[in-house]
Amino acid sequence: MVAPLKLGIAGLGTVGAAVVTMIEQRADVLSARCGRDIKVVAVTARSKTKRRDLGLDGVSWAKDALALANDPEIDCFVELMGGSDEPALSAISAALANGKSVVSANKALIAKHGLKLAALAEKHGGAFNFEAAVGAAIPVVKTLREGLTGTDIDRVYGILNGTCNYILTRMEQEGLSFEACLADAQRLGYAEADPSFDIDGHDTAQKLSILASLAFGIKVSQSAVSVEGITSISPADLRAAAELGFRVKLLGVAVRTKTGIEQRVHPTMVPKSSSIAQVMGVTNAVTIDGVGMPPITLVGPGAGGPATASAVVADIADVARGIRALPFGRPVAKLEATKKAPMEHHEGGYYIRLMARDLAGTAATIATRLAEQQISIESIVQRHPDGAFEADGQPRKSSPVPVILITYATSEDAVRRALQAVQRDKVISGKPQVIRIEKN
Amino acid sequence: MVAPLKLGIAGLGTVGAAVVTMIEQRADVLSARCGRDIKVVAVTARSKTKRRDLGLDGVSWAKDALALANDPEIDCFVELMGGSDEPALSAISAALANGKSVVSANKALIAKHGLKLAALAEKHGGAFNFEAAVGAAIPVVKTLREGLTGTDIDRVYGILNGTCNYILTRMEQEGLSFEACLADAQRLGYAEADPSFDIDGHDTAQKLSILASLAFGIKVSQSAVSVEGITSISPADLRAAAELGFRVKLLGVAVRTKTGIEQRVHPTMVPKSSSIAQVMGVTNAVTIDGVGMPPITLVGPGAGGPATASAVVADIADVARGIRALPFGRPVAKLEATKKAPMEHHEGGYYIRLMARDLAGTAATIATRLAEQQISIESIVQRHPDGAFEADGQPRKSSPVPVILITYATSEDAVRRALQAVQRDKVISGKPQVIRIEKN
Repeated sequence: MVAPLKLGIAGLGTVGAAVVTMIEQRADVLSARCGRDIKVVAVTARSKTKRRDLGLDGVSWAKDALALANDPEIDCFVELMGGSDEPALSAISAALANGKSVVSANKALIAKHGLKLAALAEKHGGAFNFEAAVGAAIPVVKTLREGLTGTDIDRVYGILNGTCNYILTRMEQEGLSFEACLADAQRLGYAEADPSFDIDGHDTAQKLSILASLAFGIKVSQSAVSVEGITSISPADLRAAAELGFRVKLLGVAVRTKTGIEQRVHPTMVPKSSSIAQVMGVTNAVTIDGVGMPPITLVGPGAGGPATASAVVADIADVARGIRALPFGRPVAKLEATKKAPMEHHEGGYYIRLMARDLAGTAATIATRLAEQQISIESIVQRHPDGAFEADGQPRKSSPVPVILITYATSEDAVRRALQAVQRDKVISGKPQVIRIEKN
Repeated sequence: MVAPLKLGIAGLGTVGAAVVTMIEQRADVLSARCGRDIKVVAVTARSKTKRRDLGLDGVSWAKDALALANDPEIDCFVELMGGSDEPALSAISAALANGKSVVSANKALIAKHGLKLAALAEKHGGAFNFEAAVGAAIPVVKTLREGLTGTDIDRVYGILNGTCNYILTRMEQEGLSFEACLADAQRLGYAEADPSFDIDGHDTAQKLSILASLAFGIKVSQSAVSVEGITSISPADLRAAAELGFRVKLLGVAVRTKTGIEQRVHPTMVPKSSSIAQVMGVTNAVTIDGVGMPPITLVGPGAGGPATASAVVADIADVARGIRALPFGRPVAKLEATKKAPMEHHEGGYYIRLMARDLAGTAATIATRLAEQQISIESIVQRHPDGAFEADGQPRKSSPVPVILITYATSEDAVRRALQAVQRDKVISGKPQVIRIEKN
């Protein structure tokens, strides 16, 4: 039997503890599967004295992550500290420069420094595995890196943030406001005290940039992703979506267009019948469109100790049995440049919700402004809300009436110009709500 | 750069042709991803003269599969001939005994001879990859073999046969008979002229036996799978299922029980809200329940040239870049014995549909017989079909009335005994329909 794979684990929070436990409890299976033992030989964490009940007897403590990464006793550095920069960055760099393999669950760091780290791994021969960084136990990194090696991919998109999907699911199912659902998510531990990283779409953007690199052979770059969060979504949008056969999801989408790879995160109308629309609550899902074949969708837990540990341990096992794929699937030198696609050139269908000041004539004005921009309307719904009628049954002239439009594919530019014209016409009150439609 | 990986491909049908085309069209990407070129150097097929337009200039023709497998010019033998025995078996055995790697899409052969072939691969150091054998492009073999290495799995189940799911979907959505949907499936090329291999569940059983081996570390064995097909399912069952919040799917289920791993294929009631219930038409899906985490579901095309080729080429690419996992995830010597679980000991909920000869008293008789076997009833529905009423509005005494029961978890034995007693009581006409319920 080959010598054991010796691990150094930096970070003993929820995930770190779950990894240590899984490696201990599943030692026999891991040994059978990998042809060698996997042993935790050294660890480091913020507090050495915190009670953890992890059976770390005989395991040495490093004074910090960098010292652990440089420990000649370890073969594989497991980074579970988080944070997009130091101290994780220097520690991972040192481990890779030493020719060690690295396993990390740190999406923020990979989205920001992944390219540099992948180059180090390539140069010195270690593995750099990060399955847990996107969709936790859902094996989407491995699927894109190894499972679809020969397949030309047109689009990869998904629900990558459980907090947002939980909020949108509750809003839809119970008709609650965004604020009420966010408060509940915070109470249940699904959202942070400062929720902006999740609800503004940045978490999704980091994960998307990693998937886009793997799918399209482009340089990982969070700054190439256009991002919009879900704070503007109202129960009225979700009700209208349901009536029109859609659901609203915060999607990360990377798609091949005539002008390059477009990467974007935004609330999206998806057809109710699509696989992605069925994904409710904190669950994550990724759909991959390969050329010439029906889509593949992977669904599962996108967070949580055991689910994240599952991916981390699988990555460690790959190191143990010598499975090596290039971190982003291709040599860093062959990854193509990435640039942010201007959203004004985005093409697709749109959902538009306006508050018409006065129904008579307004619909005609809107239709004219859209027609001027060559935008075709697939459906239009006008609704008289409660209190919108006079005693004689006539619509109350002064009450704004919601008008909801679904357009056929057009450019975002055209939509913006048409809506600016409608606003100049002073026939609507407030700002129009615009949500992009993603067809399956 | 490393020398090219030289392939010999046996079988140039739909899948073989798609593989040759994909390797040619994606040569640059494959080379970048694998760090070496992948070249088809020799082929064999039933007809050498058939027009294929495959650009096989310069590729040598072997006289048969065995000759190709023994060709010293090839590094990797790609078996796309099909058939559970010869000539594929001898050819794969020869290639593995020569230390070559083998990629195969042949579920029948792997379910029957997989163990022996895996032992050969282990002994001589070649890879033996068969992602395409289950769920085509859905990366379920890789997910179980590598993606969930550390995860303790409780259950793996799925829709593994597109023909059956197509038939059940049409029956449900259009209220058509099994026979009408089968005829349509045959017309559309989704079902064979002799459909028994699909509709009787044998195709699903072969695939399930492969997944069960990977998930639970047991010996692959088709004969350990209990199998029932879908021919007994009627539109009445699908209607009743819908009303009770279920759908009927042909599932392959492998699950850990007190007495061992139970492997079974049968029509199954699944909750409408489950991921697996959303899978319609020819699409396949597999759900994996890992201990301590929510389920992971993989959905996608389970057949077709490009989808199958996608998996075959990914397997070839893994060979090219030196990715080697044991064929069934563990050494053959460590795979545990498999035995067929007696279905009479199966425990779960049941759907039972009976035709009561005479409603008065019948429901009470049935309830009594179930109670005698300690079976608790979750719900009971009695329905008066059209024509079941006399002119005065009273139920027609002589008309059989369907009675539908959903039981709480019980043993299959108990259900059988209760229904035998009900039949002895002569209160029902015909044979009771019994469908197992699988909870998510």
